[in-house]
Amino acid sequence: MDKGYQVYFNMKYPQTLEQLKECFKLFPGIGEKNAERLALFSLYDLDDEQIKIFSNNLTKLKKNIKKCKICNNLTEDNDICTICDDKNRDKEVICVVENVKNLMSFENANVFNGYYHVLGGLISPLDGISPNDININQLINRIENENIKEVILALNSSVEGETTSLYISKLLDNFDVSVTKIASGIPVDVDMDYLDPMTIQKAMEGRNKIS
Amino acid sequence: MDKGYQVYFNMKYPQTLEQLKECFKLFPGIGEKNAERLALFSLYDLDDEQIKIFSNNLTKLKKNIKKCKICNNLTEDNDICTICDDKNRDKEVICVVENVKNLMSFENANVFNGYYHVLGGLISPLDGISPNDININQLINRIENENIKEVILALNSSVEGETTSLYISKLLDNFDVSVTKIASGIPVDVDMDYLDPMTIQKAMEGRNKIS
Repeated sequence: MDKGYQVYFNMKYPQTLEQLKECFKLFPGIGEKNAERLALFSLYDLDDEQIKIFSNNLTKLKKNIKKCKICNNLTEDNDICTICDDKNRDKEVICVVENVKNLMSFENANVFNGYYHVLGGLISPLDGISPNDININQLINRIENENIKEVILALNSSVEGETTSLYISKLLDNFDVSVTKIASGIPVDVDMDYLDPMTIQKAMEGRNKIS
Repeated sequence: MDKGYQVYFNMKYPQTLEQLKECFKLFPGIGEKNAERLALFSLYDLDDEQIKIFSNNLTKLKKNIKKCKICNNLTEDNDICTICDDKNRDKEVICVVENVKNLMSFENANVFNGYYHVLGGLISPLDGISPNDININQLINRIENENIKEVILALNSSVEGETTSLYISKLLDNFDVSVTKIASGIPVDVDMDYLDPMTIQKAMEGRNKIS
């Protein structure tokens, strides 16, 4: 093909569309093909109103969403979150979680009526996360200043989760508070054939007397 | 649990974050969990500059991106696309494709140096798409007004694609132009074990004499 035309080995979409595709690629789990699909969908299938709402929500996001100053949950229009703001909950129990996503899962399970504390991470020397990098001191302050009777550690049972739970429970030895940890074991409705050895080990270790 | 606290059977994130999550859910292949992940990533992991670029590209998208008035490819800052604007290509051949994504695939394969025509869909009575709903008349105008020697039909080999190809080739009977259709057969580098019967049928029907 020797007609002197421009060779597009890597033809790109028009600039704004190409840039939008690159924006989508910033997200976890979104690769080249998916980003192309999402960008084209934005152009062809979202109407002007939907684009406007999407764009506005992105723009307002970091300005509107803050951390609750008591527990580090997310909050909007208020210094404290809807949970901390609810005076009818059990003031004597705090459930410690790693992040907001976990808090939402626990709250939506509707099995806990105390308050939460979001650490914002787990102790992980390999990742350079020390106890000071997560909201442990703030938790201790709450124990000191409020009449907390029980602290429930609801962190995941990874090495980092166990390390963090141990660290916190040791700090809380100094206080007149009961420290409990949620149970590890076999999940509900999972075929026993597919369990990993670690989970089985924890399930055995945590066995309870039934008669 | 009778302490009178508010029961969150379906606790939501703060409003702006919840709305952003709903925006992500508008996209194909993005469900509840994925949308939650993308919204949280927007909050925690995109910096202000990235949010601004993302938001701006969304806002400018429909205003900046237009259809090429010759071939319906996408274009920005110009009435005609970069391909139609390239005078060094083969003016005697038009390759007809269904959509811009297909055009990009063909162009990036770097095997064609003529011009394109994007139909913007396929004839599909079941979906209410008639020949007048796609850019067929515009294609005929191009054949009438330019010195086109060959029209290559590069539509997919579905029922709708075949119908559309047949319709166009019949219209072009009236013109002194060669109409060709890209080959159907077994894809390159695909294990023959996994081919469907329709593909095998087409591969057999399209067999060529080699000696």
